[in-house]
Amino acid sequence: MDFQYTEKMQTLITQVRDFINNEIRPAENVYYEQLAKSPWETPPIMDELKEKARAKGLWNLFLPTEYAEYSAGLSNLEYAPLAEEMGRCRIASEAFNCAAPDTGNMEVLAKYGNDAQKEQWLLPLLEGRIRSAFAMTEPQVASSDATNIETRITEDGDDYIINGRKFYISGAMRKTCEIMIVMGKSSPDNPNRHQQQSQILVPTNTPGVNIVRPMQVFGYNDAPEGHADVIFDNVRVPKANIILGEGRGFEIAQGRLGPGRIHHCMRMIGAAQEAFEMMCKRVNQREVFGAPMSKQGSVREDIAKSYCEIEQARLLTLKAADAMDRSGNKDAKDLIAMIKVVAPNMALNVIDRAIQIHGAVGLSQDTPLVHFFSYARTLRLADGPDQVHMMQLGRNMAKQFA
Amino acid sequence: MDFQYTEKMQTLITQVRDFINNEIRPAENVYYEQLAKSPWETPPIMDELKEKARAKGLWNLFLPTEYAEYSAGLSNLEYAPLAEEMGRCRIASEAFNCAAPDTGNMEVLAKYGNDAQKEQWLLPLLEGRIRSAFAMTEPQVASSDATNIETRITEDGDDYIINGRKFYISGAMRKTCEIMIVMGKSSPDNPNRHQQQSQILVPTNTPGVNIVRPMQVFGYNDAPEGHADVIFDNVRVPKANIILGEGRGFEIAQGRLGPGRIHHCMRMIGAAQEAFEMMCKRVNQREVFGAPMSKQGSVREDIAKSYCEIEQARLLTLKAADAMDRSGNKDAKDLIAMIKVVAPNMALNVIDRAIQIHGAVGLSQDTPLVHFFSYARTLRLADGPDQVHMMQLGRNMAKQFA
Amino acid sequence: MDFQYTEKMQTLITQVRDFINNEIRPAENVYYEQLAKSPWETPPIMDELKEKARAKGLWNLFLPTEYAEYSAGLSNLEYAPLAEEMGRCRIASEAFNCAAPDTGNMEVLAKYGNDAQKEQWLLPLLEGRIRSAFAMTEPQVASSDATNIETRITEDGDDYIINGRKFYISGAMRKTCEIMIVMGKSSPDNPNRHQQQSQILVPTNTPGVNIVRPMQVFGYNDAPEGHADVIFDNVRVPKANIILGEGRGFEIAQGRLGPGRIHHCMRMIGAAQEAFEMMCKRVNQREVFGAPMSKQGSVREDIAKSYCEIEQARLLTLKAADAMDRSGNKDAKDLIAMIKVVAPNMALNVIDRAIQIHGAVGLSQDTPLVHFFSYARTLRLADGPDQVHMMQLGRNMAKQFA
Amino acid sequence: MDFQYTEKMQTLITQVRDFINNEIRPAENVYYEQLAKSPWETPPIMDELKEKARAKGLWNLFLPTEYAEYSAGLSNLEYAPLAEEMGRCRIASEAFNCAAPDTGNMEVLAKYGNDAQKEQWLLPLLEGRIRSAFAMTEPQVASSDATNIETRITEDGDDYIINGRKFYISGAMRKTCEIMIVMGKSSPDNPNRHQQQSQILVPTNTPGVNIVRPMQVFGYNDAPEGHADVIFDNVRVPKANIILGEGRGFEIAQGRLGPGRIHHCMRMIGAAQEAFEMMCKRVNQREVFGAPMSKQGSVREDIAKSYCEIEQARLLTLKAADAMDRSGNKDAKDLIAMIKVVAPNMALNVIDRAIQIHGAVGLSQDTPLVHFFSYARTLRLADGPDQVHMMQLGRNMAKQFA
Repeated sequence: MDFQYTEKMQTLITQVRDFINNEIRPAENVYYEQLAKSPWETPPIMDELKEKARAKGLWNLFLPTEYAEYSAGLSNLEYAPLAEEMGRCRIASEAFNCAAPDTGNMEVLAKYGNDAQKEQWLLPLLEGRIRSAFAMTEPQVASSDATNIETRITEDGDDYIINGRKFYISGAMRKTCEIMIVMGKSSPDNPNRHQQQSQILVPTNTPGVNIVRPMQVFGYNDAPEGHADVIFDNVRVPKANIILGEGRGFEIAQGRLGPGRIHHCMRMIGAAQEAFEMMCKRVNQREVFGAPMSKQGSVREDIAKSYCEIEQARLLTLKAADAMDRSGNKDAKDLIAMIKVVAPNMALNVIDRAIQIHGAVGLSQDTPLVHFFSYARTLRLADGPDQVHMMQLGRNMAKQFA
Repeated sequence: MDFQYTEKMQTLITQVRDFINNEIRPAENVYYEQLAKSPWETPPIMDELKEKARAKGLWNLFLPTEYAEYSAGLSNLEYAPLAEEMGRCRIASEAFNCAAPDTGNMEVLAKYGNDAQKEQWLLPLLEGRIRSAFAMTEPQVASSDATNIETRITEDGDDYIINGRKFYISGAMRKTCEIMIVMGKSSPDNPNRHQQQSQILVPTNTPGVNIVRPMQVFGYNDAPEGHADVIFDNVRVPKANIILGEGRGFEIAQGRLGPGRIHHCMRMIGAAQEAFEMMCKRVNQREVFGAPMSKQGSVREDIAKSYCEIEQARLLTLKAADAMDRSGNKDAKDLIAMIKVVAPNMALNVIDRAIQIHGAVGLSQDTPLVHFFSYARTLRLADGPDQVHMMQLGRNMAKQFA
Repeated sequence: MDFQYTEKMQTLITQVRDFINNEIRPAENVYYEQLAKSPWETPPIMDELKEKARAKGLWNLFLPTEYAEYSAGLSNLEYAPLAEEMGRCRIASEAFNCAAPDTGNMEVLAKYGNDAQKEQWLLPLLEGRIRSAFAMTEPQVASSDATNIETRITEDGDDYIINGRKFYISGAMRKTCEIMIVMGKSSPDNPNRHQQQSQILVPTNTPGVNIVRPMQVFGYNDAPEGHADVIFDNVRVPKANIILGEGRGFEIAQGRLGPGRIHHCMRMIGAAQEAFEMMCKRVNQREVFGAPMSKQGSVREDIAKSYCEIEQARLLTLKAADAMDRSGNKDAKDLIAMIKVVAPNMALNVIDRAIQIHGAVGLSQDTPLVHFFSYARTLRLADGPDQVHMMQLGRNMAKQFA
Repeated sequence: MDFQYTEKMQTLITQVRDFINNEIRPAENVYYEQLAKSPWETPPIMDELKEKARAKGLWNLFLPTEYAEYSAGLSNLEYAPLAEEMGRCRIASEAFNCAAPDTGNMEVLAKYGNDAQKEQWLLPLLEGRIRSAFAMTEPQVASSDATNIETRITEDGDDYIINGRKFYISGAMRKTCEIMIVMGKSSPDNPNRHQQQSQILVPTNTPGVNIVRPMQVFGYNDAPEGHADVIFDNVRVPKANIILGEGRGFEIAQGRLGPGRIHHCMRMIGAAQEAFEMMCKRVNQREVFGAPMSKQGSVREDIAKSYCEIEQARLLTLKAADAMDRSGNKDAKDLIAMIKVVAPNMALNVIDRAIQIHGAVGLSQDTPLVHFFSYARTLRLADGPDQVHMMQLGRNMAKQFA
């Protein structure tokens, strides 16, 4: 039992932090200026940042040890504090080719894809040449319960035909988003409700894929990735595009969501830490009623509570990452559910206090705070709402004492 | 002691509610389409709605009995449930000429303006021909403490010269915003720290008034009113534009904030009620894990808690309005401080639960929920952050038992 | 709509408050000294206080207008602030013959009892000559769901035989507790699950009524009323002791719980108000780190929050009382459920803050704070746990928007 | 970085847990029966348990490695999960000679005592032959600020004379409490406010030590240790009884409180874990409204939240213990402050949920839940109230970003 980062981890943290501070943060203004000109295109400066990060070996850090042939070969535990660093700066993850939803998609392809699928889609994703999306959520049903999904994947000769509507498909607005993994029902009548679904690869430019509009989150369109409202209207793809086989979509979803969730949580810790440090700096600079804010009791309590909450969530996240490394994603499922609930709610608390301490500017476009808040709030719904995770966790715990 | 709305109130509530449901809600789509074409112009359909509302006598309902010559002559208590109805629909207040910040500005002019000022500015505001703004908040200091204000109002012959920077000046982005009331220091060295400030009328088209940019709240620009970042660069206005007299700005601010605050709180109750009803409807329509959401324990608890919180805040707001009617804004100051803290926090809780129950769509542009949330979050800072109100309230209460 | 106490109410409040401050509080020490000598006997000084209160007409204030022949003829709304005053002092309610569980039992007898039952039990209770208990809760089942009740009431010739176990039977430890109303199942097989129960009068000295032991709450035995663990072992009472008729126990329970619940809530408001005032006084008297506690930010926030919470809960309780007066207990059931959840939780928050501000002495026998806390915590379970009320309230609300 | 207990830790945990389950829990009934006969005497069965535990080497586990000559030589990190196990059973700590306040007193004597003091007091404490108390808290002042302390230690020839009043002196009611460490001011006029205090050894049987009465916590007297209200009336002890030297009382207090605080927190984790497991068992056994409680949504959420909170607090406590081992108590002071706030509040939340799920029995003498609650509530005040720790922590954090 040891609560200190290893030397290897410390070295990597320093490298990532330095790259963010020295290369990425100074480029943020240019990034947003370029973005303003063409919202759904990756700003060109991002490609420069990616090249530099890759040159330093800070690339594909997220793929765990078992896929070391494709990646930096880090464990989940080793990656955790790096994802935290990336979470402190809105545009950092992409520079290291560690941005969602590509990370989850790459892990799915590495784990479940066949050689042709890897060749065609995994390699360009690993090289950061293309981007991807994962189409699961539907507007008409509570799709966190996969048995509700209404999108249909129907056999037709050598092809599948896809029909349905998906929304909040993150990344799908981006012009370089070339491939989507689509979850739908191929055998809606299979008595085993968890074998009705399949996942299938759908190139974004396939006829019938209609990007209807960008969905917003708190007024943000989150360009350039965006969150698309997509109609699949008789979309035809070859049978070879099915991943792992018909009826195995639920199984893939289960395998996918573990790492995806923990990566989000790691970034959340980073966002909370960034908000915390902003708050600490601010209270040294502002005066109210004749004294620095740092001398106010309620301000000090806000800081103290925030620090306690961040550090606890960080330890739990690290423990979950460690458990994934030791026993696999499935055995770590309760710990993953725990941080999935804990991290975004903790971040919302901390960021909200930071906003309050910043006053009006805390709600403005002049700090990343409201954007962090929006991201954290989204995570209380994305990949399963809090309630669903708590139901399952509570049920599992109660069972252990039955 | 009687907890039921009077017959007069019930009649008015029905009139306002019917107008909103029959006239305003059906016009919302057109309103936003028109707005999309020209964000800082009042959509033309709003002028039609205003005309209709005025024709029905649903006009200037906010100005309390003492200014009955200008208004519908309602008490604060009678206005409260009407403002609540307006708060349920984002564009409703304006149709009744009851929108902030004009309401506060009209009350200031009615109470403290001289005849010329009333003639020139109050009358067109009461007729809804022009709009206005109130410029108090500054980016560089904690301006909820008025003694921190840095904007300067300097005598120069028959004029005053104004220099300073203000931001989050709500309404000032709108093209029809013709007049601003600006708070600044005219006697920064006055040993009485509450006589250093003055309030002065500044026509928006005066040379030197530079609207720098629209400030956002979360990702919203809140068009068409907007929140402006404004630089006052040697802005020259005649001495006659001072309100009430030099050094009386703090006094005016005190008188202004009471009604302004309670109006916001009334609207907050309405926003929370609207979110609550949306949540109740949704849980009857959605199924998760094989049963309607309305059967889930945690959903029922969310609904029950929300209803308890709304009803309590509503009663406290009504009591505060009643106290203002009976004893004046000054005597009601503790009750006003209480609802100023209670109402936005209550609304945030209720709206947040409604968002969670709506899933991703709750965060989207397809419901007003996130916009309500943004408004409520803003109110935890606008007109004094929670902390300032609680400090003063706690101090006053402790003193009573010294 | 009017938020001010009527003149009649103000007069009564003053009378009750004066009696408590001038007669009861000065007698508290003697009361507890007498109690220490014989824990399950009403201290003799209480009889003196009762005589004095009765002489002043401050007697049986709780019974609502419809039973005016037996009482002071106050409405629920008029009684509410009086119960609040009583709730501020642990021994006050009894002096006015307004103590639970007798209040609920007297209302049951007044409402559902036949003439003989009234003659035998209601009159001595109204005169304060005897005390009573209500035996519903059972140790082995979740008896807040009345269909779970295991106690059996079996016909045997002209008698009923009662068998079962009840616990937390408040008042049953007291030597003057002469009568119990017992809830049990007389027709456990009735297909209508709400007609299986009956309520029956059982004199405490009936053979087979075994008071096993006093139950504690947070280490308190709450003498002299106490909370008894009672075994009913072949207890035989005449058929005439049934109230209202066989199978109507659930109906009586429904009618009983409304007023009982609201009385508890009114007392809760009083306990919270007392804790609040103690807290306000304390912070003026203590210094920490070189300044009076009243100057500390976190202390002021505690005071401000407490005041907001108390006042909101008070208004909601008054509104519920008003609704009971206007439309009857049944129509007011949602409001009663609301305050049943709101008031004890509010009181726990306020009292907990008061404890914290008092330091160790706040947890001691030297203030009533911990006892108030214990009472409030009990109320989150007694007469139905929070969760049950919220389930029902949430269900009812959702239905309205189905 | 490693989140798993070492093999050594796992072995020790098993040994301690087995001893508690096999030896201590079966003895609890006898313990309380013996206690009922003589509340301030250690029940004889405890001496048997102590002998057995000592024979197994499960003795003085708390004293960290640097005092290995006196103890089992465990690190703070190794001791943490053992203290957690002890915290699950109210009488367990004493059996292992690991009970407060002796643990803190032994560490003080081991660290700061001279040879004679160690010989006379440390050795019999280590052998469990006598018990001790630590007299710091005073009723008249906020003694969490040591500069407020009013007790005086005055030189008089070869002696010191002690005058003052202390209360909530835990352990001092017990008949075998032979020695007290008393904190008082020896140089009240020393300009350095942290050199005014001394700590001095006072045998309980010294003339002038008047144990006035037992203080309660909620309704508990916490026999046999109890919490005494003590008057020191011209208590005369030889100068040799001063610890470390005059004016060094504050320094000793600082050194003492770190380990004392973390031990309490470790036990808190255990109490919370015990409550959690009781709650999980209960929901499998009870039915409400036709289904086991374990199927209710709100119950599952309670369980899920509790587990998340316990695990986070546990990790933070372990990290703090680890930091104490690595860098010393002083460097770990922020982490110690964090858990001092986090652990009792977490425990209160978890225990409160367990109470609610148990219904009335959760408040009774039939489960340890209310006693756990009382202990946890006390810890929000003992060794410094939450507010003081948060003030200091917030100040330290803000400073790091100045």
